[in-house]
Amino acid sequence: DGKDKWPRGEEELWRANLRKPDTDVPSIARSFVNHVQTSLARQPHNLSDLGAYLATGLSVRDNLLLNWNETQMHMNRVAGKRAYYLSLEFLMGRTLDNALLNLGLKDQYRESIDRLGFNLEDLIDQERDAGLGNGGLGRLAACYLDSSSTQELPVWGYGLRYKYGIFQQLISPDGQQLEAPDPWLEHLNPWEVSRADVQYEIRFYGEAQKYVNGTARGVWYGGQEVLAVAYDVTIPGYDTRNTNNLRLWASKPKRGFDLQSFNAGNYEHAIESSNSAAAITSVLYPNDQTTFGKELRLKQQYFWTAASLADIMRRFRNLGKPMIELPDYIAIQLNDTHPTLAIPELMRILVDEEDLPWDVAWYIVTNTFFFTNHTVLPEALEKWPVPLMEHLLPRYCAIIITPLSISSVEHKFPGDHDRLARMSLIEENHPKYVRMAHLACIGSRKINGVAELHSELVRTTIFKDFLDFFGVSKFGNVTNGITPRRWLAQCNPDLTDLITKTINIPKNIWLKDLSQLEELLKYVEDEDFLEEWAAVKQANKERLAHYMRVTLSLNVNTKAMFDVQIKRLHEYKRQTLNILGVVHRYLTLKAMSPSERKKLTPRNVFFAGKAAPGYEIAKLTIRLIVNVARVVNADPDTKDYLNVFFLPDYSVTMAEILIPASDISQHISTAGTEASGTSNMKFCLNGGLLLGTVDGANIEIAEEVGSENVFFFGHLTPAVEELRYQHKHHPVPVEEKSRNLAKVLDQISSGLFGDEGVYEPLLNTIRQLDYYLITDDFDSYIEALQMIDDAYNDRTEWIKKSIRTTAKMGKFSSDRAIQDYAQEYWNIESTKVE
Amino acid sequence: DGKDKWPRGEEELWRANLRKPDTDVPSIARSFVNHVQTSLARQPHNLSDLGAYLATGLSVRDNLLLNWNETQMHMNRVAGKRAYYLSLEFLMGRTLDNALLNLGLKDQYRESIDRLGFNLEDLIDQERDAGLGNGGLGRLAACYLDSSSTQELPVWGYGLRYKYGIFQQLISPDGQQLEAPDPWLEHLNPWEVSRADVQYEIRFYGEAQKYVNGTARGVWYGGQEVLAVAYDVTIPGYDTRNTNNLRLWASKPKRGFDLQSFNAGNYEHAIESSNSAAAITSVLYPNDQTTFGKELRLKQQYFWTAASLADIMRRFRNLGKPMIELPDYIAIQLNDTHPTLAIPELMRILVDEEDLPWDVAWYIVTNTFFFTNHTVLPEALEKWPVPLMEHLLPRYCAIIITPLSISSVEHKFPGDHDRLARMSLIEENHPKYVRMAHLACIGSRKINGVAELHSELVRTTIFKDFLDFFGVSKFGNVTNGITPRRWLAQCNPDLTDLITKTINIPKNIWLKDLSQLEELLKYVEDEDFLEEWAAVKQANKERLAHYMRVTLSLNVNTKAMFDVQIKRLHEYKRQTLNILGVVHRYLTLKAMSPSERKKLTPRNVFFAGKAAPGYEIAKLTIRLIVNVARVVNADPDTKDYLNVFFLPDYSVTMAEILIPASDISQHISTAGTEASGTSNMKFCLNGGLLLGTVDGANIEIAEEVGSENVFFFGHLTPAVEELRYQHKHHPVPVEEKSRNLAKVLDQISSGLFGDEGVYEPLLNTIRQLDYYLITDDFDSYIEALQMIDDAYNDRTEWIKKSIRTTAKMGKFSSDRAIQDYAQEYWNIESTKVE
Repeated sequence: DGKDKWPRGEEELWRANLRKPDTDVPSIARSFVNHVQTSLARQPHNLSDLGAYLATGLSVRDNLLLNWNETQMHMNRVAGKRAYYLSLEFLMGRTLDNALLNLGLKDQYRESIDRLGFNLEDLIDQERDAGLGNGGLGRLAACYLDSSSTQELPVWGYGLRYKYGIFQQLISPDGQQLEAPDPWLEHLNPWEVSRADVQYEIRFYGEAQKYVNGTARGVWYGGQEVLAVAYDVTIPGYDTRNTNNLRLWASKPKRGFDLQSFNAGNYEHAIESSNSAAAITSVLYPNDQTTFGKELRLKQQYFWTAASLADIMRRFRNLGKPMIELPDYIAIQLNDTHPTLAIPELMRILVDEEDLPWDVAWYIVTNTFFFTNHTVLPEALEKWPVPLMEHLLPRYCAIIITPLSISSVEHKFPGDHDRLARMSLIEENHPKYVRMAHLACIGSRKINGVAELHSELVRTTIFKDFLDFFGVSKFGNVTNGITPRRWLAQCNPDLTDLITKTINIPKNIWLKDLSQLEELLKYVEDEDFLEEWAAVKQANKERLAHYMRVTLSLNVNTKAMFDVQIKRLHEYKRQTLNILGVVHRYLTLKAMSPSERKKLTPRNVFFAGKAAPGYEIAKLTIRLIVNVARVVNADPDTKDYLNVFFLPDYSVTMAEILIPASDISQHISTAGTEASGTSNMKFCLNGGLLLGTVDGANIEIAEEVGSENVFFFGHLTPAVEELRYQHKHHPVPVEEKSRNLAKVLDQISSGLFGDEGVYEPLLNTIRQLDYYLITDDFDSYIEALQMIDDAYNDRTEWIKKSIRTTAKMGKFSSDRAIQDYAQEYWNIESTKVE
Repeated sequence: DGKDKWPRGEEELWRANLRKPDTDVPSIARSFVNHVQTSLARQPHNLSDLGAYLATGLSVRDNLLLNWNETQMHMNRVAGKRAYYLSLEFLMGRTLDNALLNLGLKDQYRESIDRLGFNLEDLIDQERDAGLGNGGLGRLAACYLDSSSTQELPVWGYGLRYKYGIFQQLISPDGQQLEAPDPWLEHLNPWEVSRADVQYEIRFYGEAQKYVNGTARGVWYGGQEVLAVAYDVTIPGYDTRNTNNLRLWASKPKRGFDLQSFNAGNYEHAIESSNSAAAITSVLYPNDQTTFGKELRLKQQYFWTAASLADIMRRFRNLGKPMIELPDYIAIQLNDTHPTLAIPELMRILVDEEDLPWDVAWYIVTNTFFFTNHTVLPEALEKWPVPLMEHLLPRYCAIIITPLSISSVEHKFPGDHDRLARMSLIEENHPKYVRMAHLACIGSRKINGVAELHSELVRTTIFKDFLDFFGVSKFGNVTNGITPRRWLAQCNPDLTDLITKTINIPKNIWLKDLSQLEELLKYVEDEDFLEEWAAVKQANKERLAHYMRVTLSLNVNTKAMFDVQIKRLHEYKRQTLNILGVVHRYLTLKAMSPSERKKLTPRNVFFAGKAAPGYEIAKLTIRLIVNVARVVNADPDTKDYLNVFFLPDYSVTMAEILIPASDISQHISTAGTEASGTSNMKFCLNGGLLLGTVDGANIEIAEEVGSENVFFFGHLTPAVEELRYQHKHHPVPVEEKSRNLAKVLDQISSGLFGDEGVYEPLLNTIRQLDYYLITDDFDSYIEALQMIDDAYNDRTEWIKKSIRTTAKMGKFSSDRAIQDYAQEYWNIESTKVE
């Protein structure tokens, strides 16, 4: 009957004392004061804002944990199928504000805290972002967790608890990016629970042998053993008690400290093994969009997948079901190829530990895993040297080489040796490499891309041979989504209130069914509504300007158009195109008479983003942006019409301030390179218009909102390959392709923005191979910018475009995306915690 | 009027929610369940004994912190003089049981926990000892903290939060000591509060320069900066709200992780500075009673003293008093020479930071510090190479060389160059050394030894020249003490109850005024009382036997006499003498007829203690003990009359089980080597009789309880020097000094206990120089053992001795000792928190 047998002690006494969440002002105040006195050992007399934030966080955590406990008990009772989302990155940002939103307790906490002498917004600002990701991939994982809880789906995330997250970006006076470590765990982290009792031993190195009994079974022994210790992060759903878990693993030495060496006077050696274990989860690797072969990164991947699988298997074994039913109870999503080692690891467990025949194990594996591809750029496809793999994971090579038996491919495509070589898990090179994407592909039940165009490219380029072999049903698409809780309700409360008032649907309904936004279309002709809509945008611009004044001492003209490009710095994302366009505008302005200029709408161009520390060209783009800003913003001829800002140390929290303030945002990757993009969705959801190439999710956004409401430019994906061929084999000078661009490049070269000569390596990437087609797209880009200027001058029509954009963003809720995964891939069901 | 101005928010709301300690069963149950649900994120369904211990600990900690907060506010309000106890070791043992005792809440917690389905004693056993000390010196510091709170004195302790405490001792099957790290912080430690907001930057290396303005002022810059972060441990007083603080410092890197190196692919270098910072508080150094020059140890000392002084000075500056009044508000006790660097550090602060003239600074320093010497063994006096000091602490040499100006010594003792050389802070050698004891001596207001004999030796040996120079008033004695809370009430509750019932004085009175134990003398002729006294001892023997059966699978005959020696393994403590005596007894027994043996009282000899990992002779003694035990306990002729046990991994917790079970305990150091000893006091307080040499506090114990109640043997201190001279220059073969001993040594050499030849290095220390006078004391030792046998046969008289011993232990309460310090040294006053 679902009732638990009481474990021990007086049930009545336990029940009488089991807490419910604190939901009213008095009990919240009590909880806050209690944490001040005990958890923090402080008094009202010496409580700083940081202390008050921690007390608030601990109080909120109590509420979250009570729901979390209920959820775990509920899911154990239901004992249905669960999904596990393995991602090497979870870019969570801040937690407090979002938790209060999802719990529906923001007003109550605000009042309690106010009466106790603090200001909730100030306390929220004390929180340091959890920056455990580089960009879109990690933030997507965070959005999916929010949606999985909100949709009441049984999903856990598994990741690593990096001691240092994505680096802090500093900008030197001359515009160079400097990197500093991100000690985000410096203070008490109120959002995690350490689970010292949940730990697994993970083996590295050592030796592997096969049994001599003729089976596939093997054994792996010796080497280094490292402990994986669990830290749990609560993931509250919106307007529900369902609270999923994000389990992050930290590494620590199994045997502690090497005391023998210490006593022998060799302190260095004594801490060596301790360090080598602790190092595994020390730092998040920066993403530079090319593969790189660092042993420690491979250790991270194995450590994490092995710990996660051990944990998943423990939970499965507790069900007491036969192994063959594993796929009926477990779905594991691989977020990119980073967790691909989970495939051979599950094989190892099933064959070596469970003693299953190879084919049965392979059946289980290939019905358990699902794989999301995030890139078709060849240079970004992960591969690992076979010798390194053999050394670090000696049991693995035997497992990895076997699965896709050559004979079945040969049987289907007799004599097609090229195909065999292309499809092989091993790249024949010196040394040989394991192709992780191939392994992920053959080991998974389904593979998906993250937008329609990208999924098409997945099928027709990198996995074309596999499509031929496995058939089309193995391949699908789940267009990315974003959570409207953080990316609208939390970051733009004024717009949220306006929408709720206008469409007259309760917020907790439409935030969970984002297609309801279409109701807004009924009000596009309502002038009062248009005014209110514009007023909210204006207020958000003021908020951004205030933030920039306070934190960066920069003055921002809030009457200007706000044009924003925020994302990782990368050549394919073409921040360079944007800044070259800015220079073009600057030169155009300089050539104008004062009276001509007066007719123009002033424009603020905002940039933010980090470049991978080793990515020199991307860092040079930052330097160019900073120095263009320095010159342009100081030029008395132009400073009233054009301002450029580079905001250092881009983060989720910064995005939450920038996005609601944007009139237009730029998503201008070379066609075919951006798999989806998600910040495009965030801007559009907040009524910002989109300037983009026909790439990634831009296409689907245009399909939804109508092409008349977006600004497209540039060559299309099918043209790219031929253009690159021409660049290489029949180069044409920039002057002949775009006189505008040539002039811009010349001015930069000539030292208009200082630093003579320093930008040449960057400019030469355009003058020479121009792999990212800046020469081809520049003029059409300038035209698009001009169209935006013109459109913006029609204020009313612009506001209508803005409303129409927001109204049609329902598709891009991560609730839709996670339900796609749940139904089409994982086969799991929502189950509400009462 | 003492009322605090309200800081912020609604005072009423704050006050309404400020918690009081939980003191009744229902509120304790609520607190326990609350911590299970939130702090541990557990449910009744999956709560282990470890989890229940942690929930209990967190609940008790809440109570402690409430009192702690009150105490700190009270002391700030009073703003009187405070004392700081700087000790590199605090051997705290377990906290839970002691905290419940001091809070007076053990019964209430027991009932709550019982009703919630757990057993308090089982939970207490889940706690890992805080083993942040080697032995007596660290345990003394812990006792003094307990007494300072109980006596309501404003005292804080300062120490280091070692990640790994004293090593875990394992014994291999052949009797060798193996060492394993002590990961005592592996799980949540409920007894500390991390104070991420209390941190100081500590500098190492770099350069120092003097100002060119003619003053003594200097500046120190560059080098490595490391952060000291505070962790606070509550120290509850017994039967009072006063709760002092023990602040422990952990080191961490100032700038986190070296990301530049990481990105350049040099991970090793990237973590180097991080490690080098973290390494400082990584591990407690084992005490091997000889000085050793390890840079890391010196770093520990400076890190700790500099952080502590920065913290003390911050608190002093908050008072707004002139610097010259510092000694009116601060007394700092140096526990041994380990914190001696506090003297130059305070000079540095006063001269360099406060810009005080040198002489004023020196006046302040020499009126602030007090120094406790713990050893007169020349090989144990700390000294540090001058080059190392110059490298690590470049500002220091200028400070250290100046203070005791040669001229004033010369003025007093003109032309006495030998005296000058003897008194110098610098030992002229290659390299030169800084003599830390001399620095501690001249920089302190008063110096004390730890027992009458030892203080006499301090004055007449190592500091004789300083006595001549400063006069006798600089030198004093504070005989060590022990807290009767842990060492009687907590570890021997049955005896505590019997005493309370018998003397009819409330427990909370006599435990704070231990001289009341003398009342017991009125009942020595009360036969019922004698029976009850004996019954308690018997029960404690059964408890020990149970413990050994459960944890070590050893059977112990509880009808035997229990003879215990537990302390660090060291030649001067002469565990070797004890085991040689055991072998003598064994040989004697073997030579007897069965009927002769039947007349004997069976004897169990217990050993426990750790040898410093590099101390081979001490480790050989352990091996001999283990192998004698193996042979003797298995010999059918003797096993009913003599059993020997070596209990591995000696700890405070183990002492709490062994001490109440002892009939006789051994404190048999070579005369003049044991400064005081404190376990002698613990045994006697629990009614165990003392077998000892005329050394340390044994002497004062005998003075108190009467020499008829203790068993003394061996040569006296004044004879030692001459005996050693004779051993060296006129050696006499063992056979001629003690035929008994010679026979014992021969039997061991001949392989009676296996391992032929392995014990020769140990036996040769006796046959040759015999520095610790085993050959001289052996026969008298055997006689003393015989006297004990005879005395034990008179059961009634033995019980009376036992009662008389306990009755006269009042002097040895650490309450008396801490009041000595408070009144005679620190000049601080008790102030009760209401």
